[in-house]
Amino acid sequence: MNATIDTASVEPLKVGSHSLNSRLIVGTGKYSTYELMGEALERSGTDCITVAVRRERLIDAEGRNLLDAIDTSRYTLLPNTAGCFSAEDAVRVARLGREILLGLENPGASWVKLEVLSDTRTLLPDPVETVKATEQLVADGFEVLCYTSDDPVVARRLKNAGAASVMPAGSPIGSGQGILNPNNIRICLEYLKENDPDYPVIVDAGVGAASDVAAAMELGVDGVLLNTAIAHAQDPVTMADAMRHACIAGRQSYLSGRIPKRLYATASSPTEGVISLKKS
Amino acid sequence: MNATIDTASVEPLKVGSHSLNSRLIVGTGKYSTYELMGEALERSGTDCITVAVRRERLIDAEGRNLLDAIDTSRYTLLPNTAGCFSAEDAVRVARLGREILLGLENPGASWVKLEVLSDTRTLLPDPVETVKATEQLVADGFEVLCYTSDDPVVARRLKNAGAASVMPAGSPIGSGQGILNPNNIRICLEYLKENDPDYPVIVDAGVGAASDVAAAMELGVDGVLLNTAIAHAQDPVTMADAMRHACIAGRQSYLSGRIPKRLYATASSPTEGVISLKKS
Amino acid sequence: MNATIDTASVEPLKVGSHSLNSRLIVGTGKYSTYELMGEALERSGTDCITVAVRRERLIDAEGRNLLDAIDTSRYTLLPNTAGCFSAEDAVRVARLGREILLGLENPGASWVKLEVLSDTRTLLPDPVETVKATEQLVADGFEVLCYTSDDPVVARRLKNAGAASVMPAGSPIGSGQGILNPNNIRICLEYLKENDPDYPVIVDAGVGAASDVAAAMELGVDGVLLNTAIAHAQDPVTMADAMRHACIAGRQSYLSGRIPKRLYATASSPTEGVISLKKS
Amino acid sequence: MNATIDTASVEPLKVGSHSLNSRLIVGTGKYSTYELMGEALERSGTDCITVAVRRERLIDAEGRNLLDAIDTSRYTLLPNTAGCFSAEDAVRVARLGREILLGLENPGASWVKLEVLSDTRTLLPDPVETVKATEQLVADGFEVLCYTSDDPVVARRLKNAGAASVMPAGSPIGSGQGILNPNNIRICLEYLKENDPDYPVIVDAGVGAASDVAAAMELGVDGVLLNTAIAHAQDPVTMADAMRHACIAGRQSYLSGRIPKRLYATASSPTEGVISLKKS
Repeated sequence: MNATIDTASVEPLKVGSHSLNSRLIVGTGKYSTYELMGEALERSGTDCITVAVRRERLIDAEGRNLLDAIDTSRYTLLPNTAGCFSAEDAVRVARLGREILLGLENPGASWVKLEVLSDTRTLLPDPVETVKATEQLVADGFEVLCYTSDDPVVARRLKNAGAASVMPAGSPIGSGQGILNPNNIRICLEYLKENDPDYPVIVDAGVGAASDVAAAMELGVDGVLLNTAIAHAQDPVTMADAMRHACIAGRQSYLSGRIPKRLYATASSPTEGVISLKKS
Repeated sequence: MNATIDTASVEPLKVGSHSLNSRLIVGTGKYSTYELMGEALERSGTDCITVAVRRERLIDAEGRNLLDAIDTSRYTLLPNTAGCFSAEDAVRVARLGREILLGLENPGASWVKLEVLSDTRTLLPDPVETVKATEQLVADGFEVLCYTSDDPVVARRLKNAGAASVMPAGSPIGSGQGILNPNNIRICLEYLKENDPDYPVIVDAGVGAASDVAAAMELGVDGVLLNTAIAHAQDPVTMADAMRHACIAGRQSYLSGRIPKRLYATASSPTEGVISLKKS
Repeated sequence: MNATIDTASVEPLKVGSHSLNSRLIVGTGKYSTYELMGEALERSGTDCITVAVRRERLIDAEGRNLLDAIDTSRYTLLPNTAGCFSAEDAVRVARLGREILLGLENPGASWVKLEVLSDTRTLLPDPVETVKATEQLVADGFEVLCYTSDDPVVARRLKNAGAASVMPAGSPIGSGQGILNPNNIRICLEYLKENDPDYPVIVDAGVGAASDVAAAMELGVDGVLLNTAIAHAQDPVTMADAMRHACIAGRQSYLSGRIPKRLYATASSPTEGVISLKKS
Repeated sequence: MNATIDTASVEPLKVGSHSLNSRLIVGTGKYSTYELMGEALERSGTDCITVAVRRERLIDAEGRNLLDAIDTSRYTLLPNTAGCFSAEDAVRVARLGREILLGLENPGASWVKLEVLSDTRTLLPDPVETVKATEQLVADGFEVLCYTSDDPVVARRLKNAGAASVMPAGSPIGSGQGILNPNNIRICLEYLKENDPDYPVIVDAGVGAASDVAAAMELGVDGVLLNTAIAHAQDPVTMADAMRHACIAGRQSYLSGRIPKRLYATASSPTEGVISLKKS
């Protein structure tokens, strides 16, 4: 299968005790049917999917369990705490997820994607509660992947609290705006990878199109996690394939050492030759 | 070979009498060696490469002919008029290219990538001379692919003059700035594809990284032509692979119907809920 | 009047034989009433207003003549060829404008703002016809201020054809998108001011808000011409005042030598300290 | 003095018990001399200046006290906790500032600009410590103006903790990058002004040029606080004047109701008329 061949050209992404062949992690929410979800996941080339632990998200309208619809031998499951609005709630849900995955003997029992949201309108993460929950879950033995804003200081606090990965948002969940503040992502990378270049930083949320994934990877992040951009595209399956290619493209582009930006090719900087300051 | 499998997932690009499996057209200049060039071309997945006809560009420092270094059975050659600064010169060079390719019995003899530049500093195209040269070359039986600025009115004039494809620059040649003015590319598409949706529009010049290629394709252009971004990357071969993936990703992303951009997911527009105008 | 005091703090703008105290030139179209127009013009601080010569634009619904509504002792009139779609038409209209202003003994008779548009939908300028009309009007003794796209090569052709000022569009007329391609405006400035630093370059069209005017002036252009952004604002008179301040602000900001952009203050460049390229 | 006349055209900015005629608050650090600082402050049109309380910032190389160099009858002083890296330190410094200003019988004794930074390299604010310090200072009777990142959730926490004003950064202190994430500022405004439209939101940090100030004000923030952009400009006095005009321009532009952005004037949206999705 060509997806395998392709992703093999990029080195694995290591997060905690897990090693992933694809640098794209894909969500399982918002698909119109489980069948469509299954096809999109396959085409995305991912080997790690994230699943909301809350019961109302695990069971569809016809009473079918999401986990029955997924080939769990193929994907590493990453349980997440979507729908939690306090540290306390998130810790409880994370533990529940662990129980479920242990019951399935799924290796995803060891980790959790921590989401502690501030409100249902914007779905922005709450940094204070996220730090608190991280501390508790780390103490509890979890490998914690923290969804957070792009605030570099919060990102560093989360790493210091023991997070296995920090996952800054490119823009609000489901907004499709891509990476709104590359400057912040750069500082996050500087903070988180200082003397620790292999520490995994994953952009989570905000991606709208394939170019957003490529642009994120070109900043030097280690992976991208997305859901709505595929699930709500007009053609989710083709978009999943687009995201697969974009993630590889962005990683390779980052590793290849791009040409510098210039005003024009023979200028040595973007402002080369610009008319100098004229004083009155 | 997976490149073939991948590009097969995207429909062919038709320009004049030619049909291309890959939507990426790659230049042959600026590589440190012909061997490196050969490997990069292969990894790019392209089946169409553009070659400067001027003698000084066809022969390298060791006296080897570029055309001897290329497997011409594998690639369609697109001769170009790089280094021409007037319509007269460009027409002369285009005819010379046709002679050479006819001698090689190469199907590239039927077309030409027209470049008429304004000066050696910026390498920006000269619209007035480009229109003039297009008229002459069309009269001469060429299928003319016109490199031009992103000015939509010039683009339309070139189509009206008989161009087989119009190829607006994303930004200056070799500048690596990507698509500086997506608004202009959108209007170019509107002008050129009105009642003629299959008319091929190709972004030529300015691309720096894989995300630029994906972003260009997501605007709805039919292909991307690039050279420096691969040839001058620190690792041209890996960058070529990045560009291959990015071109497919961008095309699929465009075809898949991306999610709209919003201030946040539950807002119905980017400015939804923004505090309303407050009058003093 | 404070407008006078303020604008006096910025050196005059010289275009051909005219010297203007304000660097903002304001149009007279699209106002709901002449009274509102008059108040907005006054608040804008401008001393130069541009007037469409075509009869249907000079006479309002009640049969009143625009020129009767303007204090022509206060403003230098700049006749324009709005609504012309060929060089021939524009030249005819320019001559008509000269006749009218000569009849009024208005100094604006010596110059013209040349607009040759491509179509009524986008109102984009037609570069080929604009060059042609410029040549004829210069031969005819006009000081020609050329509205054109931001294509630097066309801009240079217009200067070479004898234009008294080149006026690149920031974005399409009435689009409110501001300066879409600062890179092109920079190259225009480099071309037009090379060995001729006082050559006037004016951004004409596309401005939507005060920050657009300031940003344009900060690029080093000599002035801004606008109409819709004031006339179609919800409160045109206050917006006129905003534009007056913004034009001064942008000029002063340009002259003051701004601080460089950095990733953060102690970084020596925007990419300072960013995690270095990691090869697999 | 025309600054007075000008700023009078904009309604006062109310923060806690203070009412300011200018919406620009200016810092006092980084000037080469106190004389230059004094002139720049005057030209900025501000009536509120912020002063670092730490001793090493109040006394210059010649042993002169900053407060002796400022006409404190003219400006409201806003003491700040620059140089503090923990809530504890910031609270201590805030109290010290109150003592000093009470001694001077300066009305600035009632408020404080709270800065709790994360490190000396990036000078980014620490949200967790800032929330903690805010709670303590509010309990202590201070009107607290909180410098923070643009994270909307932290901004709302600070308001809920009793902050008199929340002051999100446009970009890192001294970076000159302007407003990097207008989307976040919009959500901050939505959160902070919901059912409380007069709650003051002030952009603090990151401004580089006049257009940045205008653009910030056009988002609907109530004021801008800046320092480096003036103090480190090549000509601080002229830049101060630029900022004065830009702040007024941006406020008026916001209040005037700008025209919408469109692909071109006759399009009804930015994507109007764009070639529709083409499926293979």
